[in-house]
Amino acid sequence: MKTFRDPVHNIVSIDKQSEKVLLDLIDTREFQRLRHTRQLGLSSFTYPGAEHTRFMHSLGVVHLTKRFIDKISTLKNIDQKYIDELHDNRMLALVTALLHDIGHGPFSHALEKTTKIKHESWTIEIITGDTEVKKILEYHRSGFSHEVAEVIRRTHKSKAIVKLLSSQLDTDRIDYLIRDSKFTGAGYGAFDLEWLINCLRIGEVNGDTEFGLDLNKGLSIAEDFVMARYYMYVNVYFHRATRSAELIMDKIFQRAIELNNLGKIDLPEDLAEIIIKSSTSKTLTNYLNLSENTIWHYIVLWSKHEDNIMSDLCTRLLNRKLFKEIQIEGNLIDFTEKVINSLKEHGLPREYYLLTDEATSSSYKDHYITQKPKSEGSENEKEASEQIFLFDKSGNGIELSNKSKIINQIRNEGIKIDRMFIPEQIRRLF
Amino acid sequence: MKTFRDPVHNIVSIDKQSEKVLLDLIDTREFQRLRHTRQLGLSSFTYPGAEHTRFMHSLGVVHLTKRFIDKISTLKNIDQKYIDELHDNRMLALVTALLHDIGHGPFSHALEKTTKIKHESWTIEIITGDTEVKKILEYHRSGFSHEVAEVIRRTHKSKAIVKLLSSQLDTDRIDYLIRDSKFTGAGYGAFDLEWLINCLRIGEVNGDTEFGLDLNKGLSIAEDFVMARYYMYVNVYFHRATRSAELIMDKIFQRAIELNNLGKIDLPEDLAEIIIKSSTSKTLTNYLNLSENTIWHYIVLWSKHEDNIMSDLCTRLLNRKLFKEIQIEGNLIDFTEKVINSLKEHGLPREYYLLTDEATSSSYKDHYITQKPKSEGSENEKEASEQIFLFDKSGNGIELSNKSKIINQIRNEGIKIDRMFIPEQIRRLF
Amino acid sequence: MKTFRDPVHNIVSIDKQSEKVLLDLIDTREFQRLRHTRQLGLSSFTYPGAEHTRFMHSLGVVHLTKRFIDKISTLKNIDQKYIDELHDNRMLALVTALLHDIGHGPFSHALEKTTKIKHESWTIEIITGDTEVKKILEYHRSGFSHEVAEVIRRTHKSKAIVKLLSSQLDTDRIDYLIRDSKFTGAGYGAFDLEWLINCLRIGEVNGDTEFGLDLNKGLSIAEDFVMARYYMYVNVYFHRATRSAELIMDKIFQRAIELNNLGKIDLPEDLAEIIIKSSTSKTLTNYLNLSENTIWHYIVLWSKHEDNIMSDLCTRLLNRKLFKEIQIEGNLIDFTEKVINSLKEHGLPREYYLLTDEATSSSYKDHYITQKPKSEGSENEKEASEQIFLFDKSGNGIELSNKSKIINQIRNEGIKIDRMFIPEQIRRLF
Amino acid sequence: MKTFRDPVHNIVSIDKQSEKVLLDLIDTREFQRLRHTRQLGLSSFTYPGAEHTRFMHSLGVVHLTKRFIDKISTLKNIDQKYIDELHDNRMLALVTALLHDIGHGPFSHALEKTTKIKHESWTIEIITGDTEVKKILEYHRSGFSHEVAEVIRRTHKSKAIVKLLSSQLDTDRIDYLIRDSKFTGAGYGAFDLEWLINCLRIGEVNGDTEFGLDLNKGLSIAEDFVMARYYMYVNVYFHRATRSAELIMDKIFQRAIELNNLGKIDLPEDLAEIIIKSSTSKTLTNYLNLSENTIWHYIVLWSKHEDNIMSDLCTRLLNRKLFKEIQIEGNLIDFTEKVINSLKEHGLPREYYLLTDEATSSSYKDHYITQKPKSEGSENEKEASEQIFLFDKSGNGIELSNKSKIINQIRNEGIKIDRMFIPEQIRRLF
Repeated sequence: MKTFRDPVHNIVSIDKQSEKVLLDLIDTREFQRLRHTRQLGLSSFTYPGAEHTRFMHSLGVVHLTKRFIDKISTLKNIDQKYIDELHDNRMLALVTALLHDIGHGPFSHALEKTTKIKHESWTIEIITGDTEVKKILEYHRSGFSHEVAEVIRRTHKSKAIVKLLSSQLDTDRIDYLIRDSKFTGAGYGAFDLEWLINCLRIGEVNGDTEFGLDLNKGLSIAEDFVMARYYMYVNVYFHRATRSAELIMDKIFQRAIELNNLGKIDLPEDLAEIIIKSSTSKTLTNYLNLSENTIWHYIVLWSKHEDNIMSDLCTRLLNRKLFKEIQIEGNLIDFTEKVINSLKEHGLPREYYLLTDEATSSSYKDHYITQKPKSEGSENEKEASEQIFLFDKSGNGIELSNKSKIINQIRNEGIKIDRMFIPEQIRRLF
Repeated sequence: MKTFRDPVHNIVSIDKQSEKVLLDLIDTREFQRLRHTRQLGLSSFTYPGAEHTRFMHSLGVVHLTKRFIDKISTLKNIDQKYIDELHDNRMLALVTALLHDIGHGPFSHALEKTTKIKHESWTIEIITGDTEVKKILEYHRSGFSHEVAEVIRRTHKSKAIVKLLSSQLDTDRIDYLIRDSKFTGAGYGAFDLEWLINCLRIGEVNGDTEFGLDLNKGLSIAEDFVMARYYMYVNVYFHRATRSAELIMDKIFQRAIELNNLGKIDLPEDLAEIIIKSSTSKTLTNYLNLSENTIWHYIVLWSKHEDNIMSDLCTRLLNRKLFKEIQIEGNLIDFTEKVINSLKEHGLPREYYLLTDEATSSSYKDHYITQKPKSEGSENEKEASEQIFLFDKSGNGIELSNKSKIINQIRNEGIKIDRMFIPEQIRRLF
Repeated sequence: MKTFRDPVHNIVSIDKQSEKVLLDLIDTREFQRLRHTRQLGLSSFTYPGAEHTRFMHSLGVVHLTKRFIDKISTLKNIDQKYIDELHDNRMLALVTALLHDIGHGPFSHALEKTTKIKHESWTIEIITGDTEVKKILEYHRSGFSHEVAEVIRRTHKSKAIVKLLSSQLDTDRIDYLIRDSKFTGAGYGAFDLEWLINCLRIGEVNGDTEFGLDLNKGLSIAEDFVMARYYMYVNVYFHRATRSAELIMDKIFQRAIELNNLGKIDLPEDLAEIIIKSSTSKTLTNYLNLSENTIWHYIVLWSKHEDNIMSDLCTRLLNRKLFKEIQIEGNLIDFTEKVINSLKEHGLPREYYLLTDEATSSSYKDHYITQKPKSEGSENEKEASEQIFLFDKSGNGIELSNKSKIINQIRNEGIKIDRMFIPEQIRRLF
Repeated sequence: MKTFRDPVHNIVSIDKQSEKVLLDLIDTREFQRLRHTRQLGLSSFTYPGAEHTRFMHSLGVVHLTKRFIDKISTLKNIDQKYIDELHDNRMLALVTALLHDIGHGPFSHALEKTTKIKHESWTIEIITGDTEVKKILEYHRSGFSHEVAEVIRRTHKSKAIVKLLSSQLDTDRIDYLIRDSKFTGAGYGAFDLEWLINCLRIGEVNGDTEFGLDLNKGLSIAEDFVMARYYMYVNVYFHRATRSAELIMDKIFQRAIELNNLGKIDLPEDLAEIIIKSSTSKTLTNYLNLSENTIWHYIVLWSKHEDNIMSDLCTRLLNRKLFKEIQIEGNLIDFTEKVINSLKEHGLPREYYLLTDEATSSSYKDHYITQKPKSEGSENEKEASEQIFLFDKSGNGIELSNKSKIINQIRNEGIKIDRMFIPEQIRRLF
């Protein structure tokens, strides 16, 4: 047994014989790289404990995936086919759990905005391209890499495995909620994981395999879990200081491109290929070399750049002199004009000094609480995966918001946060 | 109140008015830099949760320092002079608590070995040199920076403040033990902090002011605290994989210097000035620009360097292909010769491929458990600071090992670990 | 300092000099009696860990009351009159916190139903009657016992103290929620106490002093706190097995009275005076002698009583052969008739073997979630005390359900649980 | 699955089909009786949270026993015979775990002292006598009750099962240490349970099957575990206030016998048969009816008894007016004489008012830390069971104190506490 200590799950064990492929994958350059990718990007500006990386999160998802499969396997009164399906695809599930975030780059949200390439695409490319990961997957079983990619694309024929790793009650979000809560120190994400696992069920709803919770025992934990996520979004993921820092990072990338176009900056080859020539020739190798370390290294260098905007933005990140939110007063258009005029008077170009945030449009993948109100009558496949089901003794699945008016309430609300950030010295004028 | 959430202490608050100097110091470039300095260097190779930085640790020490002063202030039956002394020097204590680690650079232990400059020297230089920190300290009170430096040097006239921040029972090591235990996930460092604080006492021993614990209530927690440290050293700080990684980092710095002397490497100006010309012209500015990010950035670059040794060592760190410990068998000299011969046969120069570790000589500052057995009769000043005292009702302080044979046992033992590390492929031959 | 260890708050300290009156009250016979009164009555039948007593809960409320007062005292930007009011009435608040549950008898809910006397009446009587408690209160300050009684009756002129101990956000329910959650092992009652205290505010709403939370920082914790209570009611306080046991206890008291009227049972003097002659001559002394121990002692004796009903009911409690809930199917009246007929056929009198539970009518004092929907326009004084307020920077208090649709949802729902319990062997027939 | 929530292990599950015998045993009158037997007797006088009962502890031991067997079953490189032995005797182990404390009566230590009958004898009698427990055991498998009794007597042929439930590293003491630590709120008993289980090994030492820990990984946790027990004894189990209360309980039983002999007290039949005629005709039925409730009920009655000594002792327990420890000064014999004289002057008979405690002679079953120093050369069988073994890779077991000087230190020390308690008013004179 290879044993990892984990502040969240305490002990995460991987068997050296039967799960050797997992250990081999962990030892690849591509996976070790996750040691340098923080789970919460710039959130540590707000919650200084939140320095945890996607490396340990990925191991945590493997651990939870095992526990889920083991729990389901002990259930009586469920169709044996589910147990068989999970059993037959166990290693596929664990491998996908391990690799699900392997495509994340440094400061994913800002980078994706700049490159227009989703981290999921990189994940697929790492799994199926010319990488150590691919070699190990194929060595394990010919065609295995494509199977893993299918699970990530949600097109794999085992719906149970797809849902286990990507649904409202998947092991990914369960791990990150608890982990983010623990490392930020914000209690909001806490819920009773042991009870949730104890209440796990599986069944068929509208012709689709779904994980869910026991109707009798699981209603409160279902509510508590959804509420935990809601609190985390409002207080942690969408925290104004974190969002302000992320928007500055956006602008630094944007300025780097502009200065590059003007021949006024020397970008390192790796970074250049990713953010400049992104739509043409970017190579996986360069992407894999790019880490938060390199970005921060250049932010230090650029903080002394002759371009005032570039050096100012970089210095702001280094010294945590973030832009501040300004409360919009009166008519939005009039107000915005006043702000823009004020920026102009101080020689601050609006495209760099007036940052706007629409948090619902951010790429956090949890659609449940940000989606539109449930449309009457029809639920398309995508929406179906954004629901939590409660199973009664006969195995019928009932969607949570039908049993919980609280959850129905959240569902109809969504979280939509519009904010405007400007430098402190301008805000003071208002 | 400015509030920080902390996985260890939950809430760390700083008053925006009365403690403004602390907030101003936190906002300096020099302090913000600690966000990029991990508390445990390369320990996250072994304990992946241990990504916590010196930034939050420093705030934690401020928090504990407040709690200690507050606790002492409520004690009855102690000489009022101690309460007055702590009260009069409260802000000095808090500021020193905040700044005590500000001189730490990236991978301190490896860097110190290369540069031969202790992080304490940098700390003094940051506090008293041409820095934002210095300005804020002097603005707060003329001469304040020198007072803070005196506390760090342990020469300040307030012995209570010196001991509060640097002794066997200081707020620094109490914070780091709990914090390191929590973030590594290794339970060893856990002890009952609330009870320890509840048992706090202060008094005079051999003419010196000392913090200590209540003789009646505090014996078990004193033992438990010392044992916690002991376990952390054996299992975490001196963990073989962590030590192997640290020794590789040493060798990378060593190779960079050699290649530089040969004109075969382009070191960035900042790094060059620190590690090459260290004894001559190194400047504080360059030191402050140097972070783990820059080192890791260059390790990625150097992993493709034409020098085989350099690229191999860097690749090893990136891919976590660490050297393995080899158990010494038979006569040490004979055995070592066999190992060296084997390395030679494989074309691996011994100065880079045979790493030796004497963990007692590492720079962890806790001398208690590594020091020589207590000499009979005389205790010099230094040793005195490495003891824990138990105070009886009359205020007499008794050294812990006089009351606890367990502690006396540890004291006489010390931890001394000698290890030899070589590449896996060589170890396999033995 | 007298120090109590507490699984919930870790250390609860009481100063031997300045808070001597608290220690003297703890040492009274009346208060020591709370060591024999379980906080959750028969809940340990469902949650075996829940054996905690009102003794430690009362100390916990003292502890929280201190923390609340201390927190409010550090707030800037609030009217100094609040700080003065809390400061002037500090000892009154602490004493009332300690004594607020002192009138609780064994199995309060069942006993109150039988005797028609609320535990609050006994509390007043213990505080103002011929007791050790009264003597100590009056020794502390003449008239003090009546002041304490006024706080408990909510008629004391210091509204801040009244609200601190009895409102939606009082120290009593905050302690019992966390405590009950911890000892049952049911995670539902958990919320972030430290953050709640950090967000505490005080102000005036509709001419009344109210505690509340900071509007900016406190919304999520307010929601989380109300949700925690909601989950605890649904899953713990109203748990079917617990309710079944409580209803059996009711019936045992009822049968004891009947048998006594028939001259078929010898009740001990203490118990007789309380449950039989309750409306006429019961004395405080007998009430104070009555404990769960005595009731259980008699349940053992009565389990061998010649009356079949009595011996059966007592044996059921001793052996945990509880009545089972039966799901009502079809028309309520028809269904009930069928159940009654079935009981009759088996010779089981319906008044003892058909137990009905209307959990909303239970005497748990939390009206918020069980009350009627908020009436439009007017809020009477009582309702006002059942609200949580959020204070903005100007000190304006806004009622929580105006800011949180989730809470508004709970408010309009309430918890109303109607259940029917019958013996297992009858239920099997349906 | 029948699920119990537990503050210690969170969820304890028992399978309704395959482990039905456990559920049937839990439902017996004899086992339900453990709900009324506190784990730590009168310790709640000192640690008010410690109201936990042997009911939940017994379930906790079942849970840990399962986890131990499951862990051993996953080990590679151990002799398959151990896994087979544990597998073959799994239900025997779980049943014995559940029943190991079933013979405990109210205030075991005081009662055993009075009756001279060990609770282990009652346990055997309940398992093999005319009880519901016996019936269920025999229904499960003919002869099963005797097998269970053999495990409890440590004479069963499966040494693995015997050691699992009764040795230095048995599931009983692991559960009670953590549980007692949690419910008292005293942090001392805490250790890293997950890591301990992770390090579990089994093997043969001196021809005997032994559980132990991995030599490489388990040394620190072995030390930490032994230290935890050491702290618990010193600070909790042997706490002076608890011991004082226990000694008063002794004296109440002693006085009840005396008064009974004089015809001055009416003892209830159950109690009389147990404490008076104990060596002649006591019956199991009466013993099973006797609970802490009955004892407390009589203590209330006797607190009004005409015998001054009886009423005084009972009042002292009810009001927690315990005897106080007096520090022996000077010559023991002279000092004792002075105390006795002083008691005589105040009309207090020495046999009731001078209580002496020799904590080593108390019946806590942990001999390790109280036994004599290890004799050179020979270790008899009994001693062997009081050791913890560390297994190296070849499966050789090394006794812990050979690897740990700290543990060797404790071993040679033991805990021996001699105390003298007298009434407060007498102590004041000294």
